[in-house]
Amino acid sequence: MKKRAITPTREEDFPNWYQEVIKAAQLAEHSPVRGCMVIKPWGYSIWENMQALMNSEFRKRGVENAYFPLFIPLSYFEKEAEHVEGFATECAVVTHHRLKKNSEGGLDPDGELEEPLVVRPTSEMIIGETFSKWIDSYRDLPLKINQWANVVRWEMRTRLFLRSAEFLWQEGHTAHATAEEAMETAREMLDVYETFAREVLAIATIPGEKSEAERFPGAVNTFTFEALMQDCKALQCGTSHYFGQRFAKASNIEFQSAEGGSQFCYTTSWGSTTRLIGAMVMTHGDDDGMILPPRVAGKQVVIIPIVHKEEMRAKVMDYCERLKEELDATVHIDTRDMRGGEKSWDWIKKGVPIRIEVGPREVDEDKVCLCMRTKEHKDKAFPTRSELVANISNYLDEIQQTLLDRSEKHLKENTHRILEQKDFDALFAGKGGFALCPWGGDRTLEEKIQKERGLTIRCLPFAHQGEKAKCFFTGSETTTWAVFSKAY
Amino acid sequence: MKKRAITPTREEDFPNWYQEVIKAAQLAEHSPVRGCMVIKPWGYSIWENMQALMNSEFRKRGVENAYFPLFIPLSYFEKEAEHVEGFATECAVVTHHRLKKNSEGGLDPDGELEEPLVVRPTSEMIIGETFSKWIDSYRDLPLKINQWANVVRWEMRTRLFLRSAEFLWQEGHTAHATAEEAMETAREMLDVYETFAREVLAIATIPGEKSEAERFPGAVNTFTFEALMQDCKALQCGTSHYFGQRFAKASNIEFQSAEGGSQFCYTTSWGSTTRLIGAMVMTHGDDDGMILPPRVAGKQVVIIPIVHKEEMRAKVMDYCERLKEELDATVHIDTRDMRGGEKSWDWIKKGVPIRIEVGPREVDEDKVCLCMRTKEHKDKAFPTRSELVANISNYLDEIQQTLLDRSEKHLKENTHRILEQKDFDALFAGKGGFALCPWGGDRTLEEKIQKERGLTIRCLPFAHQGEKAKCFFTGSETTTWAVFSKAY
Repeated sequence: MKKRAITPTREEDFPNWYQEVIKAAQLAEHSPVRGCMVIKPWGYSIWENMQALMNSEFRKRGVENAYFPLFIPLSYFEKEAEHVEGFATECAVVTHHRLKKNSEGGLDPDGELEEPLVVRPTSEMIIGETFSKWIDSYRDLPLKINQWANVVRWEMRTRLFLRSAEFLWQEGHTAHATAEEAMETAREMLDVYETFAREVLAIATIPGEKSEAERFPGAVNTFTFEALMQDCKALQCGTSHYFGQRFAKASNIEFQSAEGGSQFCYTTSWGSTTRLIGAMVMTHGDDDGMILPPRVAGKQVVIIPIVHKEEMRAKVMDYCERLKEELDATVHIDTRDMRGGEKSWDWIKKGVPIRIEVGPREVDEDKVCLCMRTKEHKDKAFPTRSELVANISNYLDEIQQTLLDRSEKHLKENTHRILEQKDFDALFAGKGGFALCPWGGDRTLEEKIQKERGLTIRCLPFAHQGEKAKCFFTGSETTTWAVFSKAY
Repeated sequence: MKKRAITPTREEDFPNWYQEVIKAAQLAEHSPVRGCMVIKPWGYSIWENMQALMNSEFRKRGVENAYFPLFIPLSYFEKEAEHVEGFATECAVVTHHRLKKNSEGGLDPDGELEEPLVVRPTSEMIIGETFSKWIDSYRDLPLKINQWANVVRWEMRTRLFLRSAEFLWQEGHTAHATAEEAMETAREMLDVYETFAREVLAIATIPGEKSEAERFPGAVNTFTFEALMQDCKALQCGTSHYFGQRFAKASNIEFQSAEGGSQFCYTTSWGSTTRLIGAMVMTHGDDDGMILPPRVAGKQVVIIPIVHKEEMRAKVMDYCERLKEELDATVHIDTRDMRGGEKSWDWIKKGVPIRIEVGPREVDEDKVCLCMRTKEHKDKAFPTRSELVANISNYLDEIQQTLLDRSEKHLKENTHRILEQKDFDALFAGKGGFALCPWGGDRTLEEKIQKERGLTIRCLPFAHQGEKAKCFFTGSETTTWAVFSKAY
């Protein structure tokens, strides 16, 4: 078998393959601070591209960016009972505001705060408090605000991008005059996410509603979109919540209606995180590393000048520079003092969509060596320069489409409509995947299944509700369908 | 006297004028969390524009963005003695990682951490630790990394943008093989800042070196650029530090040199913050509110449709939409259901550089009413549409230049070369400003002057060193010149 860049391979050990790809692609690393990661330049450039593209979608929908405090006073956090219960076990708490020397010459916390501050795990309570001041009348509605921020949810077992104590995200918060409009917005933002995942990240997902057990603490409805990684485990890619008037009542978000009289607003929130980078690794990566969808790649094309003799350098470099100017793409020329093969492997592992090699022969013949990351490495093409320039966006589109096709195929092949217990058992005794089943159970039964088998309802998919069938867990007739899976 | 939008005026009460402008321009507000602010959409859009423009300057110089942990373990923080001493009195400290119910039904911190975590006041120690892993050989140098992040420095007396417990900033960190290259980078980044302040924010500053008393904790040299607000108090706009090998030794940042053998790196860091928004308010604002330099305005042009009769609406709106398409600028059409006068004042207070009013008469005559924020409000021009379209960038450039001219004039008029004690005393008994004086004193004398008179050395300006003169504080001959001022 051919030697691949990542050891172990996906088949040998998927979790360790994932860690090794993150390392080889220089996306991120564990920091000396327990549970916190360092996002390296290559990983952060992907996040910046995602931010720019999402911002543009948000803006089209009248959402404005703002920034709210990192800290939440305990008393604010306590205002919504279910909400605080959901986060109480994973909160970083600031209790002191300075340090003082101890007798051994080290430092101890000093200056105890009258009221401890929670480092935000999410900002409903602090943004709700602000909304209550910003909103007076129906003319102030709808209010649509987003913030890009770091949040902290204390985790004992961490995995880069997927689960860490601190992570980066965006959280949108909206307030509306009517329940219908709020619900529409919660659904619309899920659509924005799902479309972004499909069209930009090339990840096919199943959108749906969360079951009661999996809802966001305090939400009336939580919507989600769930992807299936190559190891057939699910990854929740982001969520959107409809709160009804629960958070508005907790934070006193009231408005004077057009007809007169004071009413509570209806609110939503919706978030997506750096976890999406992990989702891309586990969806598109192969045994040579990451594969980046062109629409989100920090560098879409890398040109590698191949110079064996110093006297050829100027000629090759001029050609590369001219090519860079001509290409309608994000192009980087790798001028590092390394062997060409080493450079190629570096960009393969990082997942750059297109590599172009240019040596003296290519310059003489006015053509290039073209490698697409979605093809086998030996599968090289030799277009002329003008062919390359004319077709570069087609090549990039082809890669983008190939990745989405693969993701859709994987999702389709591993989503099984299951009507009997034995098929359900067989699926999860084997490689797993998404089991689409009629569901007549309740929260207690769902939690029992989770405890005993490590399976959860990923969502009640929008596209599969209403058909009458028998729930094999309970024996009851139902029109509700649920997707079960193991999940990250 | 004419009624102005802001009460009090600058002359009546500058500090309160500042607070009122921030409020009227909807830039930011105090949050319920002591010392933390909420940056409102208008203020945040300015910050986003600043980020984009600075990122582009950083990128040109080979700086890459990354992200590092919010928390710093106490033991890391302690590695550089002067550094920790400088920040110990203003650190938010996380001591617990969950909450538990107390006997009264409230919540208490629970799960005490073995080692407390400091919420980063700056990231030298955590980034230094990471650099020590990233750098092996001279081939890895120079390493130039920037992060956009929130930091926390506990403050008891806070002022929006100028001084708050949490603020947003960028912090650049670089490592080099030689002292010369590191020093050059520290100076280069100060130039980047100073140019950015002048050309984008239209703020004239005096760049120079900090005196020992004002140096960043642990730095060998700190460079700064100091602006003079309209009340003749100084504002430090950003700093760049040369660390020599001090932080490299504390964090073990070593490299194998080209000649073989292990050496410590030379490092720098440099930062600028949301404080720059406050600097713009206090530099450009007038008694009607903020004035935004066009190059950093979220909206450069606001079109206000004036529709008194409903049947005219479509005609006016079509004209406005067409105008928006034609103008080479960031244009917003204000379609809110408010009176035109109210809208105008809203954008005046927010500081939008150009307002354009369009009513049915303007449509009929194919011309517009043009108001520039740097002129008196009654000073309106009535260019034809094609004149406006042809000249819009000239108008914006004119505003940008006017603001810079005013800032330079103010700086020049209020910077005094002072050679005698009595002139120094007279200046600070009066309206204050920058006093450029020969300086032969030491840290002790500087601290005495600060304590007794509230005056600090803002910088030893680059442009005024070397000339021999007598220091009137000490009577000694010196070639060092210092700029004294009261400061924010």
